[in-house]
Amino acid sequence: MITLFLIGIGTGNPDHLTAEAAKAIGEADLILIPLKGEDKADLAGLRLDICKRWVTRPEARIETFALPVRDPATPDYLTRVSDWHDSIAQIWQDRIRAHLDAGGGTRIALLVWGDPSLYDSTLRIAERVSHALPLRLRVIPGITAIQALCAAHAIPLNDLASAVVITTGRNLRRDGWPPGAQTVVVMLDSGGAFCTLGAADVSIWWGAYLGLPEQMLISGPLTGVSAQIVTERARARERHGWIMDIYLLRKPVAAP
Amino acid sequence: MITLFLIGIGTGNPDHLTAEAAKAIGEADLILIPLKGEDKADLAGLRLDICKRWVTRPEARIETFALPVRDPATPDYLTRVSDWHDSIAQIWQDRIRAHLDAGGGTRIALLVWGDPSLYDSTLRIAERVSHALPLRLRVIPGITAIQALCAAHAIPLNDLASAVVITTGRNLRRDGWPPGAQTVVVMLDSGGAFCTLGAADVSIWWGAYLGLPEQMLISGPLTGVSAQIVTERARARERHGWIMDIYLLRKPVAAP
Repeated sequence: MITLFLIGIGTGNPDHLTAEAAKAIGEADLILIPLKGEDKADLAGLRLDICKRWVTRPEARIETFALPVRDPATPDYLTRVSDWHDSIAQIWQDRIRAHLDAGGGTRIALLVWGDPSLYDSTLRIAERVSHALPLRLRVIPGITAIQALCAAHAIPLNDLASAVVITTGRNLRRDGWPPGAQTVVVMLDSGGAFCTLGAADVSIWWGAYLGLPEQMLISGPLTGVSAQIVTERARARERHGWIMDIYLLRKPVAAP
Repeated sequence: MITLFLIGIGTGNPDHLTAEAAKAIGEADLILIPLKGEDKADLAGLRLDICKRWVTRPEARIETFALPVRDPATPDYLTRVSDWHDSIAQIWQDRIRAHLDAGGGTRIALLVWGDPSLYDSTLRIAERVSHALPLRLRVIPGITAIQALCAAHAIPLNDLASAVVITTGRNLRRDGWPPGAQTVVVMLDSGGAFCTLGAADVSIWWGAYLGLPEQMLISGPLTGVSAQIVTERARARERHGWIMDIYLLRKPVAAP
């Protein structure tokens, strides 16, 4: 039986790591690290740094693999993503088999930015691998970008006794403001989905590179700061070659 | 200038602590720990254990204080909670002043279950204190019950590309299933708000005492397991004198 550890490592600050995550990394026999091309080389480097800090057993192996890309020829978004997960699962499976055939131990670890439960594919890929290999899953939570955003701005996620909607830039563009929502967190926005809202009473708290030395924060009334966010985001993306950002939108509590 | 550290410590598993949180606890001059009465004595004990593990400087002080109770004579919920936050802020303020008057250092820490941003009052209380004392806030994120729940069940929080609603038992009872939602996380349910839904196609993943040795997990179709959850929850609450639980509800993805 293989134990597959999906380990949340936070948003890039090595101090986000929990004691549980550090221990799991330290006990792994094989750690698989995906490389996403040169654009995000510094992210892969951060993952390697974390491994080097916590992997102390000489027999532990750290292996990188080139992450496949989604096939732009597949028109449907969900099919495209599903096919992509199949390709990644095949790579994991091949690497794990090769490692075991070479006499490696059965503790396999994958390091996940943020938390494996939140807008991350690792659990879905692991499910595919479990059809081919006898797998026991262990998920270790990590600090998410949502938490890093709220902490950096020192704001609560929810208003008192109120609900929160977590959604994607794609959903926000397509469906507009979620019905009845007061607080909306937007992830995976390729840029500026908030510009489509045109809501005069919305405030925004935006953050990029959260937890990293490059961290950027902007907040204020949406109508007042949205242009600034779009400009600074584009500039930062060009400077670093990549960007990861997130934002929280809030309407004032309705008068009773 | 006082630095007030609001430190998320996870859901009770000492290994949830991040390196950042451990460091902040270790550097604090005064740590304030609220006591909620004998019912939750083991929770206060856990907090003290965490302090003892990370507080090494002999001049550091750990002080407990009795948490005031909400005044049941105040009929309006939000007013009742707001008055209660005022009382707690007054206690913090008095304790911090006394500590400084006695020559104590300016790094004050509060330990928060889960994360200070999620259904927690600490940020709102700190805001009140900042009106009376020169305060710089530093929020340190911690693993939330939502993450501990998803990790324990090894499930993603969101369905692929879908939104998530986080809400309270009170809201769910009052408003029913959030409009358009597919995944709903319910916190602060005093018990069985899911019984009011009567939705045939909803699945539930429930967890209590997450991260603690007493951890309980139940999942399945809501109609099939809701009675079991209500019974086992009541039994556990009686046995331990308290319970903290949370659940995720999910409807199947609609066919396109």
